[in-house]
Amino acid sequence: MEQIDTLINARWVIPVEPARTVLDHHSVAIRDGRIVAVLPTDEAHRTYQADHVRELDSHAVIPGLINAHTHAAMNLMRGIADDLPLMTWLQEHIFPAEQAHVSPEFCQDGVEAAVAEMLAGGVTCFNDMYFFPEVTARVTTQAGMRLSAGMILIDFPTAYADKPEEYIEKGLALHDAWRGDPLVTTAFAPHAPYTVGEERLTHVATLAAELDCPVHIHVHETADEVNQSIATTGERPLARLEACGLLSPGFIAAHMTQVTETEIERLAATGSHILHCPEANMKLASGFCPVQQLLDAGVNVALGTDGVASNNDLDMFGEMRSAALIGKAVAGDAAAVDADTALAMATINGARALGIDGHTGSLTAGKAADITAVDLGALECQPVYNPVSQLVYSAGRHHVSDVWVAGRQLVHHGDLLTLDRDRILNRLHAWRDKLLPNA
Amino acid sequence: MEQIDTLINARWVIPVEPARTVLDHHSVAIRDGRIVAVLPTDEAHRTYQADHVRELDSHAVIPGLINAHTHAAMNLMRGIADDLPLMTWLQEHIFPAEQAHVSPEFCQDGVEAAVAEMLAGGVTCFNDMYFFPEVTARVTTQAGMRLSAGMILIDFPTAYADKPEEYIEKGLALHDAWRGDPLVTTAFAPHAPYTVGEERLTHVATLAAELDCPVHIHVHETADEVNQSIATTGERPLARLEACGLLSPGFIAAHMTQVTETEIERLAATGSHILHCPEANMKLASGFCPVQQLLDAGVNVALGTDGVASNNDLDMFGEMRSAALIGKAVAGDAAAVDADTALAMATINGARALGIDGHTGSLTAGKAADITAVDLGALECQPVYNPVSQLVYSAGRHHVSDVWVAGRQLVHHGDLLTLDRDRILNRLHAWRDKLLPNA
Repeated sequence: MEQIDTLINARWVIPVEPARTVLDHHSVAIRDGRIVAVLPTDEAHRTYQADHVRELDSHAVIPGLINAHTHAAMNLMRGIADDLPLMTWLQEHIFPAEQAHVSPEFCQDGVEAAVAEMLAGGVTCFNDMYFFPEVTARVTTQAGMRLSAGMILIDFPTAYADKPEEYIEKGLALHDAWRGDPLVTTAFAPHAPYTVGEERLTHVATLAAELDCPVHIHVHETADEVNQSIATTGERPLARLEACGLLSPGFIAAHMTQVTETEIERLAATGSHILHCPEANMKLASGFCPVQQLLDAGVNVALGTDGVASNNDLDMFGEMRSAALIGKAVAGDAAAVDADTALAMATINGARALGIDGHTGSLTAGKAADITAVDLGALECQPVYNPVSQLVYSAGRHHVSDVWVAGRQLVHHGDLLTLDRDRILNRLHAWRDKLLPNA
Repeated sequence: MEQIDTLINARWVIPVEPARTVLDHHSVAIRDGRIVAVLPTDEAHRTYQADHVRELDSHAVIPGLINAHTHAAMNLMRGIADDLPLMTWLQEHIFPAEQAHVSPEFCQDGVEAAVAEMLAGGVTCFNDMYFFPEVTARVTTQAGMRLSAGMILIDFPTAYADKPEEYIEKGLALHDAWRGDPLVTTAFAPHAPYTVGEERLTHVATLAAELDCPVHIHVHETADEVNQSIATTGERPLARLEACGLLSPGFIAAHMTQVTETEIERLAATGSHILHCPEANMKLASGFCPVQQLLDAGVNVALGTDGVASNNDLDMFGEMRSAALIGKAVAGDAAAVDADTALAMATINGARALGIDGHTGSLTAGKAADITAVDLGALECQPVYNPVSQLVYSAGRHHVSDVWVAGRQLVHHGDLLTLDRDRILNRLHAWRDKLLPNA
């Protein structure tokens, strides 16, 4: 018998790689934080002696979900300003609240709440863009969660930095501080083509190539953004970003609700990635991202919630469902963005976008044991004809029972093992009173 | 002190009538199944002596949700055939499964599962269309839930009835059997303009006027339906239904993804109602219902999940969120279909459509005590700036703690008081094995 740390025996294992595979009565064997094997449970019992055995008789075990675009600290502003046009929302509520309140403490408390919400909901990794990313990295890794930390850059002063040079300097310090960490990678995170000048974007392209970091940016979120760019520069933003040297396998563009056939060809040809945020795009009436068309062209599309101020949750189960539903409606085809595709978008496609698919995003021997278990035994998930359908169309994040990141169990029977829920709630209540004048 | 049966003390009471009202630290007083008063909690303590007091310190108390369009018995077919074009789905999976299996026992078990799912998710009433409605009425009322039972009519034979005359005869027997019941009303439920002939629809219009029953029908679900009607009759289905005398305050039309400005005017002028099913419409790529445009024209729009074979849940929280999100996206306006509107669609608008707004749909003195409590204390619902935003955009059906119908408590701390969850699960497992060949 071979000694391992943990053996997870599941009713179904859905490894995502190979695609469209459901393994009945299979097990995942974990040693030293990595997946040793995915194999039939009876065979696992003959092969392994485990320190910990978790029996999941009515559960689907899937790769941990990857939230590919969010602003975690904004959890303090959930629902602070809803049902408003984008510019009213931003200029009269979000920006003033941020100017008055964003600080390392704000980020500490907001990120901790976000990490708790995401872990409890089966998310094992997120790609963040916000101020004070060093706080985000510290809070996230203390909880044991995986992170792509954004080296944020914006052309105006904030509590975090005064000048573009300072943003870049702080970003590079973050990159150096976390290089080689098993849980953290870094991505350049220039906010958007309309808030970061082209000279700086070109500089970012050079740095990103040198350091082999992705570039995470909001692109073509709305038609207005595209129209204003054409009015002022004669070009669409994506063309300007390509001229800056950004389009590449390291280019990860959030939203992209406006996209021509030529642009889809350029995104595919350059190996660029789209971070699709269906709920935020609907909530802000930003437009519709043609996901199936992008996928058909060979563009990798990952899935993100965006921040809770425009969603209003970090629920990747809801986001998978919304992506599948709106994906069909936009394609005019009930077979578009099927359940397997939605699950891949929320797992392996996210890992590919973040450049970490070599060590997470699927249940494959050798990869980190980033694993989520979902109990499909509840009445509202029964009967089960196809567990992937059930995960995407019927189950919710409240059916998540267990979560492991790099082999460490962070959620057990729905309980957060590395975070103090009451402490977080107390901080949320305190921030609510401070922020209320901005609501 | 005045003696009452139940006093619910809540952090927030959201009565829906008057509209856009949030009452802090208010109570609902219940006697003989009816709401006696909605009043500040401190005043309630001075006024009432209650047999049962429920303290809901972190909860929003809202009218019980009304699922205005569903096919409850189809709960046995959750996820049996997903990601397929509408006609493949219907003709190769749903119809064969129904032909082989639908029976009183099928409906008994399917409806019981649906009632359990809906009650646990805060739904207190549903408007059903399916075979063997007498079984649906019996199962639903045994659990204590409210129902608008559909007197189904379709032009082909099924296990339920052979000929149109037999469907109508059985429907009228259902109507007579349940007349005056405190929980059940009946609606004529001709399936669709393309499955029920005009002669029969005209007959239904006459019967409905005589008996003062609504007419519940699928209308303009897809563009194909409209195009085929034009090709074969030269008219759009809605025009044919109007010619049959159906458009009226008793006309409740499910789906309506295809609607011209003239049709909107006719719907408004006749007092007709739309039963909007955003998730099913997206999942089957049927099209987009212009909800804000209908509301602006004065048309009452209620909300339904449709059956779980095309959704795949009976989650009215998810449906409110989807209605708000897709409503904004379709209107191109982030202020469209706001959270208060979505909540009204899921409560009072449903009651209006079903003709029962005189006794349910809002927390108003004199109405039946159909009440749902939602715990917003969870980390993923905090902080709370606006409880209505939280209900629609952040909370889920798993945050429902308590449900009362006509003053009787049916859910307490998430437990179903009138149903045996294990028994239902066993029946679902057994049906799964029988139905699997149709998957």
